[in-house]
Amino acid sequence: MVSTEPKKDLRVVGTRPVRPDGVDKVTGLARYGADVKLPGLLFGRMKRSPHPHARILRIDTSKAEALPGVMAVVTNADFPRPPDGIVNLGELSVNGNFLLDNVMASNKALYRGHAIAAVAATDIHTAEDALDLIEVEYEALEPVLDIREAMQRGAPILHSGMTTEELPAGVKGDGPETNIARHVELSKGDVAAGFREAEVVVEREFTTGMYHQGYIEPHNGTALWKKDGQVFIWASTQGQYEVRDSVALLCGIPPSRVCVEPVEIGGGFGGKTVVYMEPVAALLAKKSGRPVKMIMTRQEVFEGTGPTSGTQIRAKIGAMRDGTIRAMHAELAFEAGAYPGSPFTAGAMCAFGAYDCENIYVEGWDVVLNKPKVAAYRAPGAPAAAYAVESVMDELAERLGMDPMELRLKNAATEGTRRVDGATFGPIGAIDTLKAVQDSDHYRSELTEPWQGRGMALGFWFNVGFESSAYANVNVDGTVSLVLGSADIGGSRASIAMQFAETMGIPYEDVKPLVVNTDSVGFTAVTGGSRTAYAGGWAAYEAAKDVQRQLEARAASIWECEPEAVHYDADGVIRGPQDKQFTFKEIVAELPHTGGMLQGRADVATDTHGPAFAVHLVDVEVDPETGKVEILRYTAAQDVGKAVHPSYVEGQIQGGASQGIGMALTEEYVFDDSGTMRNSSLLDYRMATALDLPMLDTILVEVANPGHPYGVRGVGEVPIVPPLAAVANAIYAATGARVTRLPATPSRLLEQLLDEGLTS
Amino acid sequence: MVSTEPKKDLRVVGTRPVRPDGVDKVTGLARYGADVKLPGLLFGRMKRSPHPHARILRIDTSKAEALPGVMAVVTNADFPRPPDGIVNLGELSVNGNFLLDNVMASNKALYRGHAIAAVAATDIHTAEDALDLIEVEYEALEPVLDIREAMQRGAPILHSGMTTEELPAGVKGDGPETNIARHVELSKGDVAAGFREAEVVVEREFTTGMYHQGYIEPHNGTALWKKDGQVFIWASTQGQYEVRDSVALLCGIPPSRVCVEPVEIGGGFGGKTVVYMEPVAALLAKKSGRPVKMIMTRQEVFEGTGPTSGTQIRAKIGAMRDGTIRAMHAELAFEAGAYPGSPFTAGAMCAFGAYDCENIYVEGWDVVLNKPKVAAYRAPGAPAAAYAVESVMDELAERLGMDPMELRLKNAATEGTRRVDGATFGPIGAIDTLKAVQDSDHYRSELTEPWQGRGMALGFWFNVGFESSAYANVNVDGTVSLVLGSADIGGSRASIAMQFAETMGIPYEDVKPLVVNTDSVGFTAVTGGSRTAYAGGWAAYEAAKDVQRQLEARAASIWECEPEAVHYDADGVIRGPQDKQFTFKEIVAELPHTGGMLQGRADVATDTHGPAFAVHLVDVEVDPETGKVEILRYTAAQDVGKAVHPSYVEGQIQGGASQGIGMALTEEYVFDDSGTMRNSSLLDYRMATALDLPMLDTILVEVANPGHPYGVRGVGEVPIVPPLAAVANAIYAATGARVTRLPATPSRLLEQLLDEGLTS
Repeated sequence: MVSTEPKKDLRVVGTRPVRPDGVDKVTGLARYGADVKLPGLLFGRMKRSPHPHARILRIDTSKAEALPGVMAVVTNADFPRPPDGIVNLGELSVNGNFLLDNVMASNKALYRGHAIAAVAATDIHTAEDALDLIEVEYEALEPVLDIREAMQRGAPILHSGMTTEELPAGVKGDGPETNIARHVELSKGDVAAGFREAEVVVEREFTTGMYHQGYIEPHNGTALWKKDGQVFIWASTQGQYEVRDSVALLCGIPPSRVCVEPVEIGGGFGGKTVVYMEPVAALLAKKSGRPVKMIMTRQEVFEGTGPTSGTQIRAKIGAMRDGTIRAMHAELAFEAGAYPGSPFTAGAMCAFGAYDCENIYVEGWDVVLNKPKVAAYRAPGAPAAAYAVESVMDELAERLGMDPMELRLKNAATEGTRRVDGATFGPIGAIDTLKAVQDSDHYRSELTEPWQGRGMALGFWFNVGFESSAYANVNVDGTVSLVLGSADIGGSRASIAMQFAETMGIPYEDVKPLVVNTDSVGFTAVTGGSRTAYAGGWAAYEAAKDVQRQLEARAASIWECEPEAVHYDADGVIRGPQDKQFTFKEIVAELPHTGGMLQGRADVATDTHGPAFAVHLVDVEVDPETGKVEILRYTAAQDVGKAVHPSYVEGQIQGGASQGIGMALTEEYVFDDSGTMRNSSLLDYRMATALDLPMLDTILVEVANPGHPYGVRGVGEVPIVPPLAAVANAIYAATGARVTRLPATPSRLLEQLLDEGLTS
Repeated sequence: MVSTEPKKDLRVVGTRPVRPDGVDKVTGLARYGADVKLPGLLFGRMKRSPHPHARILRIDTSKAEALPGVMAVVTNADFPRPPDGIVNLGELSVNGNFLLDNVMASNKALYRGHAIAAVAATDIHTAEDALDLIEVEYEALEPVLDIREAMQRGAPILHSGMTTEELPAGVKGDGPETNIARHVELSKGDVAAGFREAEVVVEREFTTGMYHQGYIEPHNGTALWKKDGQVFIWASTQGQYEVRDSVALLCGIPPSRVCVEPVEIGGGFGGKTVVYMEPVAALLAKKSGRPVKMIMTRQEVFEGTGPTSGTQIRAKIGAMRDGTIRAMHAELAFEAGAYPGSPFTAGAMCAFGAYDCENIYVEGWDVVLNKPKVAAYRAPGAPAAAYAVESVMDELAERLGMDPMELRLKNAATEGTRRVDGATFGPIGAIDTLKAVQDSDHYRSELTEPWQGRGMALGFWFNVGFESSAYANVNVDGTVSLVLGSADIGGSRASIAMQFAETMGIPYEDVKPLVVNTDSVGFTAVTGGSRTAYAGGWAAYEAAKDVQRQLEARAASIWECEPEAVHYDADGVIRGPQDKQFTFKEIVAELPHTGGMLQGRADVATDTHGPAFAVHLVDVEVDPETGKVEILRYTAAQDVGKAVHPSYVEGQIQGGASQGIGMALTEEYVFDDSGTMRNSSLLDYRMATALDLPMLDTILVEVANPGHPYGVRGVGEVPIVPPLAAVANAIYAATGARVTRLPATPSRLLEQLLDEGLTS
């Protein structure tokens, strides 16, 4: 559709300008959800279930409603019932009943922290007092918190009527009902024949914990429900249109009646793509006739929002003695939390996505259990899958007596490789990225001390496309305000403005990007799937082209020549007959007196996103007395297509890697037997911080995405895919212990080292 | 350019739907300037000159700056000096130095209330206290407050270096300097020959007072000057782009560095087209590093903002015995206030604009004097001119023994009449409107009581075009949000949305109009000149056509046919081959899965606006003991082109008429000898209220403007043109006194009746 080679002479794309929102953020002007203030604003609070599994027999809100200062109370019964089945609304494709019941429980509470009712009051203390006055009569039910138990027949069942024939091996018991919500099978070739051929086979099972995205800013939402039925929502979200459509669905009104203003977002990482507070605030606002603001506490964030799935994954790879892989098989069981919807399909797609193998079979299960409903988290499903597969690859290399790098180079996917999901790769950078690491100083260095080890892993993420809009408003002084519909979670204002400036041949500083509410610009899909710099940049490119066409026509009318004789060149100069020319600023200065200013618009539905590959190399040192793992050195290489703003790309890589290191070593939800999370604060939920990590080195590999004007491919997600495996492989190299359960916390690793006689 | 006949089968245009901003306004949600609240907001106040004319010898702000709570003080010296001469910037074409010096005086204070300095403090009381601590040393100069005196040689001179050769007759004295800023001459034919031919000649001189627009909401402005140099302004304005460009000019920064958010406006009537507080708030914000809000008191509104010009006008008309007018001559002297810029040219254009006469000569002078600089006020300049001309027409009819209606019908302009400014009328409604009044029940009724009288007058206003933008965002549920750049001062959200809905063939309720800030939509000229429903509607029409073209292409791709085989029809149905069709909602439902949503954009620079005519008929009763005039009955007929929303059109007519009645009878600035306004409150400045008036009847005459898709011509201004003359003529009919000075207050009229022996 567009140039298949990136331009060689880019002026703006590839530079590192100042971010347009930076000053607002460091001076405190940027407006976050908590900063929203409105006349008559009420404060909303949620009452949440103390039980991980319980039938709700009765909710009596009368005492709460009678408390002075309480202006409205809502429960699930106040929401209209969504249509049954999957609802398609804008970009939404959801089971409306599950969405609603997760926002506020109907007949059953399915996890501790599940919202039961909400109160809006004139101040937050009154709202909290009112929560205590809401009487809820529960019938406590036996919870199921372990994915293995949840899959068994006879386990406590969360949703009546859920049945499946596609059970994993080893499921025992009977009864038609199950907690397995969905099943997926992906295959190519003949995997059984492949394993028969294979000379070396390695198979192992792995478990990962439940990890939260750990964004700094808690979820929040403020709603104003006007008397004419128009609803205005301020939301900290990655997808204001998704919030719009979700609120509309749950409140039973058309999407156009809801306008969502995306306030600044203090981190999302996938977790801010679903609604929690927004529809409740809307209904409280409707009932009270006043605006309502709700902000979660940190404990609510942990207990009431979506982390990523805990997983149990079995991976099996068979190879010839020369290292040629003949068969790959994986079984993935993913925790969905209380309602179906884990990223098990994405995990299945990514498990072997980095490899070129004729025979692949992947099977996955989406399993409900009494934990918070999971949400997207950066490359959802892929880190756990890569952990299993890349650990087995490491073991396979050892069994083959091959260098792990060589094994991967021999089998890595290349252009033309057909994936297990049916897609065929175009130009991709798996091998280039492996070689970039192989050529690195880090790779060539040696580790000499005992208890030190090096690990590597290869990660794949497919990236997505979807729809983006842009509206470019040419200003009289020869600048452009660029109106966007993408929430800016990590620098998209800058990266999209840069692509616009590049296309127009004007300075980056002359483009002012704006993120506006859902009424004010065209539909734009969620900021996620590593799509925004890619698809948003494309929309900006097309909007610039629309401006250029109009400027050419204007120049033709000024020069009194045919439009075909005029061309807007990449250097920002319009050229016409007889060496006539205008710079952009010159022609803009003519606009007011030759027909007025002009604007460009674009709405693109993109599907030529390029997949991304990452190779991470890590050195660790394990303390044999405590089991504590220290990261000594870390290098992350990645095929970034074209790094629009290299500093942001490096930041994405470092951020993804550090989150992955946290998953590998320190983070996870810890539940007690009663189903209560025991570490629901950022003090106890131990993410890797700058103090825990060395500088993370990055290597940017640019294999242009031919499906984008500037060769851009998504960069934000794949850096979280390899770290779990890379760290586990490094621990093995340092200790001889093959870690099959993450996080490898000090106590857990020490126990394994002691069990396996590797330390004493 | 477009259909020359209005469509006959309009579904939306011409109906009376609910206004989209109505609920917000009646429930208090609408945000006006006073409602703007920001963290760290400071409050600004102005120090103003107590002298109408003084040299400023010294300003010492040090004591004010030292007052705790004062965060910034600015004077004229803090502003960069604008470039000399006329600056063209966006729609601005102004003398930057005059603009700046009116915002804040430089070396001289030129009227009482002239801003001298401003303070921003943490609360408004501290700011006011600080004003008293600013020491200003003045050298008081003799003021000139009367336009006759101001034009004389030897009068106190406001601006050194101002000279002209084009002095009115009767100017005495000597010296090269003058207060006459500009002069204009318009002529056609041979007016001297015309008067020689004429068998009856009437000549008379008239004076009008200085009238304020009387908007309910005082001027205000809030500014935020960010650390990165971006400036954000909240303004109650008719033209957010004009505010943007003015603030940029006065602060010495590019327009794109300023973003103006138009908050709701509590009345403007032309007076909110210039900046007063906004640049000062901006500079205070820059100096203090915090946002600053400024709101005028009512006294400041009267003393520190622009009313319309007081005028002195001589009109002379000569006719044949059969009523054929042979010559028309007028001399107009307009008070500009302290800086040049009265609407004297518009007055000159409009004086005889309603008539078809071969020989016309009009001369005008723009005169500065020590009163506030005038601003636009509804049909600027035309009401005073029409007062003079229509009074003379009334007297001429009497002298000819002709019915005033017949005299006007005989001489009214028609299609093809060439105006004195050179333009030639297209289809116009002067005669239709006269006949509509002639056919009215009011006209046919009789007055029988003594001291009652009937007057009529014909008014003309040329209307303007200019540039408007629109951006139409199609929503997934088959509605459209319509993004506009026009401040909505009187229903333009509704009238533009109606034209969009009409064009798209969809319900009005499915269009959601939005007024956004200057960064977020294309340049749109000021809401004034009766241009907004006309040009904004046209932009909406073109944006709808842009949507339709894209929908046709999409339908063609769905139907797999040529785009030429698909047509979007006026009923909102897209039709293709083999009777295939989609309603608008049906095709929109297909968009998400066939290439994404779409938007339309338009930026039109219009020049086919249709001129407007109004005929007002009024019955009065004069109390011979007090001189008080009571309005008994009032009928206003107007050629409205096509009444988009008839209720709004009627409201515009009633509003204009009632303002004109106030000018005729009760309102004016009253100055004492020291140059102090003595009635600077809405209690003492007596506008006509609902209690003073009967129901004002309206007659809508629709002579389509062939230069607009729906025949729209501006309606907002011309209704203020005839009332002054109509009331004066009615007073003459009731009393026999020819009123040559307005307002005809009871005391003034009683004095005239006594002087002329008409009462005792």
